Amino acid sequence: MDEPKEVTIQNYKGWEDFYKIKKSEKLDFFIRKGRMLDILFSQQFDRDFLNNMCQLATQIRRMALTKMGARKLSGLLSHKRAMLYFVQPSTRTFISFLNACHILGMKISEIRGTSTSSEVKGESQEDTIRTFASYVNLIIIRHPEAGFAEKTAWLLNQNKLPVAIINGGSGPDQHPTQALLDIYTLERSFRNIGGMDGKKIAMVGDLKRGRTVRSLSYLMRNYKDVTLYFVAPEVFRMKDDIKSFLNKHNIEFHETDDFASVMQHVDAIYMTRIQKEYAEAPAEETDVYPQFHFTKEHLSVIQSHCIIMHPLPRRYEIDVEVDKDPRAVYWKQERNGMWMRAALISYLFGVDDEIATEYR
Amino acid sequence: MDEPKEVTIQNYKGWEDFYKIKKSEKLDFFIRKGRMLDILFSQQFDRDFLNNMCQLATQIRRMALTKMGARKLSGLLSHKRAMLYFVQPSTRTFISFLNACHILGMKISEIRGTSTSSEVKGESQEDTIRTFASYVNLIIIRHPEAGFAEKTAWLLNQNKLPVAIINGGSGPDQHPTQALLDIYTLERSFRNIGGMDGKKIAMVGDLKRGRTVRSLSYLMRNYKDVTLYFVAPEVFRMKDDIKSFLNKHNIEFHETDDFASVMQHVDAIYMTRIQKEYAEAPAEETDVYPQFHFTKEHLSVIQSHCIIMHPLPRRYEIDVEVDKDPRAVYWKQERNGMWMRAALISYLFGVDDEIATEYR
Amino acid sequence: MDEPKEVTIQNYKGWEDFYKIKKSEKLDFFIRKGRMLDILFSQQFDRDFLNNMCQLATQIRRMALTKMGARKLSGLLSHKRAMLYFVQPSTRTFISFLNACHILGMKISEIRGTSTSSEVKGESQEDTIRTFASYVNLIIIRHPEAGFAEKTAWLLNQNKLPVAIINGGSGPDQHPTQALLDIYTLERSFRNIGGMDGKKIAMVGDLKRGRTVRSLSYLMRNYKDVTLYFVAPEVFRMKDDIKSFLNKHNIEFHETDDFASVMQHVDAIYMTRIQKEYAEAPAEETDVYPQFHFTKEHLSVIQSHCIIMHPLPRRYEIDVEVDKDPRAVYWKQERNGMWMRAALISYLFGVDDEIATEYR
Repeated sequence: MDEPKEVTIQNYKGWEDFYKIKKSEKLDFFIRKGRMLDILFSQQFDRDFLNNMCQLATQIRRMALTKMGARKLSGLLSHKRAMLYFVQPSTRTFISFLNACHILGMKISEIRGTSTSSEVKGESQEDTIRTFASYVNLIIIRHPEAGFAEKTAWLLNQNKLPVAIINGGSGPDQHPTQALLDIYTLERSFRNIGGMDGKKIAMVGDLKRGRTVRSLSYLMRNYKDVTLYFVAPEVFRMKDDIKSFLNKHNIEFHETDDFASVMQHVDAIYMTRIQKEYAEAPAEETDVYPQFHFTKEHLSVIQSHCIIMHPLPRRYEIDVEVDKDPRAVYWKQERNGMWMRAALISYLFGVDDEIATEYR
Repeated sequence: MDEPKEVTIQNYKGWEDFYKIKKSEKLDFFIRKGRMLDILFSQQFDRDFLNNMCQLATQIRRMALTKMGARKLSGLLSHKRAMLYFVQPSTRTFISFLNACHILGMKISEIRGTSTSSEVKGESQEDTIRTFASYVNLIIIRHPEAGFAEKTAWLLNQNKLPVAIINGGSGPDQHPTQALLDIYTLERSFRNIGGMDGKKIAMVGDLKRGRTVRSLSYLMRNYKDVTLYFVAPEVFRMKDDIKSFLNKHNIEFHETDDFASVMQHVDAIYMTRIQKEYAEAPAEETDVYPQFHFTKEHLSVIQSHCIIMHPLPRRYEIDVEVDKDPRAVYWKQERNGMWMRAALISYLFGVDDEIATEYR
Repeated sequence: MDEPKEVTIQNYKGWEDFYKIKKSEKLDFFIRKGRMLDILFSQQFDRDFLNNMCQLATQIRRMALTKMGARKLSGLLSHKRAMLYFVQPSTRTFISFLNACHILGMKISEIRGTSTSSEVKGESQEDTIRTFASYVNLIIIRHPEAGFAEKTAWLLNQNKLPVAIINGGSGPDQHPTQALLDIYTLERSFRNIGGMDGKKIAMVGDLKRGRTVRSLSYLMRNYKDVTLYFVAPEVFRMKDDIKSFLNKHNIEFHETDDFASVMQHVDAIYMTRIQKEYAEAPAEETDVYPQFHFTKEHLSVIQSHCIIMHPLPRRYEIDVEVDKDPRAVYWKQERNGMWMRAALISYLFGVDDEIATEYR
């Protein structure tokens, strides 16, 4: 009985079947005329794409510095309409996407919260999506259900409606634009020291449920000789699926709960939040795993070029005092998210070339 | 005592009186310089207007297909501001209007939900409306109260503020833009077979409370030799007011509860939802009046040119399987709503001519 | 122990200390390159600034009357992004700011309500603000906490992020844009009778808690020979801080509870709401202090040039019948708010000169 293995892009029947197909085998389904139509999971990104997106994000960021550049950007997609469909609350990601769209002049419809009036009237999820797709050119989706964005793209691509889908976070599953902005932050920070290749990166905190560190780990296959250090309490260690993936792609990694011994050797420290909702004793929150916090004292321990990242929001993982150090790049990382999302949207609508011409 | 009859546009006193005046006798009140200032009820539409709006909607839809056309459209009303004042929830109509405005580049203020902070502070409804009118050029209103949009227009026209009002649905009363998009869908579908004149149209489902079929029926007086078939369970039959209207205008209609006998002869089938909130036994929802559902099997029964319409959202009235048939035009009908609303707004602001010049 | 007095712009430590510094001594902190970066309290406004803003507001208002002018305005800041961060509900102020931004073509992010999802995740208020500042060029804040907008500006100015802050109302404290629009309304109304200098202005109602009349009183130091009449019930008399301020600046004022004797002599009557939430007997609301209401009968008592103002929303303080009198300028005053806010934003982004060139 190995029937599940037989589901392929040639023989699948319906969504349930399609979802079972290995991601690497269905990449073409989300491509039209040599360009991705939907951005759903980080397996879609190869090194060329990552490099191009980083370059495009930098071009947009620089153009936005001048009035003439910013005005040109704001006209690029002023004739396009996007919907931000955020079933799961997320102020930060929402505003980041919204302003990425605004930079390019897009017109935005917002659907926030868990239910729409049509759902109340008994409409199916599929019909609701088709309705949204009737009105806009792009739908950015944040949904608690793993695979929801992919399902939407699958549904709409069948109907041949040229509506692009971006996954803005699908439950515990994927958050591909976060992975892109992390890569951009790393590449930007390392631009004078040879880029990502050969770097040592520590990931610290709740690696078990941290979507961002998981996605970022997957992308490491695109770079040469990267070494990862997973620094976590026993209960929050990185899951086996990621470790198998890294082994398969010959990416070196080490696991430890000794943050002090790791921090002095690495080129980047990626801090994550040990999430409130799982803390055992809320009354002692600030004391939760203090040995995995980054403090002011650590600044003299880490290398002079070692950057400190964090997907934000933070609680106690990083001292506020650390913010002033130029190696603390998490606020820059946050803004990079907006630039990278603008780059991605430019790419989806094929106006990346209009941006690139500014630099020829 | 026939005093109420004496209320005319010349002698009315205050809103209560004005509201009693027959709609046909107060059309001029909502006109400025030969052009409607407000869109409130479908009695305002004559055949010339309907034809012009259909043509304009098609022009906008086609312009939007090219980058140059779409960019031109998005600049037409970029200097105008609209407010979407939706007291009654309606995701679909809201997004349709919002994106119609966006196509033309309008800037949008949204007021959703039942109460504003000013109402909490004890402000009168009239003052709230005047406040909204202070800031924008157009107010699109959805309100549970019959006549509310008309009242707003009446109030603002007195004060000579050039603020346009569009009725986006006023309780059980009117939904004039829905009627316009239905006409557009019918005309577009029949464009190669002589348009609306002489066609047979079946309306199916809850005709008693269905606002859309009621509005559409009124518009039939603008076309020649249309025959209507009202197909409904006994408890949901079309009300007498519509039937009197049709009789008065010599529009042929038939009533029946035998859907099967009607469907094979008509040119269009307009399905409607038998609304959940009135179903007798919620547990058996899918079984509510199944003889008034349109199924896959019916596709081989209806004429090869017969279109199937639905105002959406649907529940069980139409099989999802039917969607793929080219005669199922309800998704197109939904998008037509956006184009028609854009056409209407273009007309209100007098930029319809700038659009028409693209086709000369 | 007079340590608090020693806190100066040179020696302060942290926000708590900074907040204690006299406003007049920290004006420079909110200035960059000779131009205000943040609009926080009315002490920032001198007569030149007030005059310039009034002129600019008029220029914008006139430009907006023509299609060419309105389109030019809507392109001025189409490359800039603002956030409306309204923790305290205020439909009127919100829409006024929103449309002021829209007039200039700005792209808007809205955060309404008391909590964001990041706050739920345990993020500090400071981090939330820095996040918002990451994405936009201007943050307009309405917050129940006195000093919150100033704190935000203080925080962001330290980090050298060029993000402007406008205080859209901070609790019982300040509402500087309301003061600006009131000055504009007065100046506009008095433009043919010599402007503000030498005028007599009555302020009526709840002067104790009325933020608007308090702010306006402060601005009187910028004009010559203005006389103020504070007309209020005993329990709602103007507080001592304002009276001290007026005495210090030699501004003449009189206190009375006899509205009738004052109204016939003044050039402007500024009515305010005696707020519902404090009324002793809700059942008798309409009767609350009727001697401080302005009625239709009063129209024949006041001078032919005397204007009637109100910050709105009103309840019973002014008869609806009064609205039709040309001296009732409160609806104009409301629209002036939008024009003045557009002027202020133009100034903050340095496009006031692009507007002024239209009039050279």
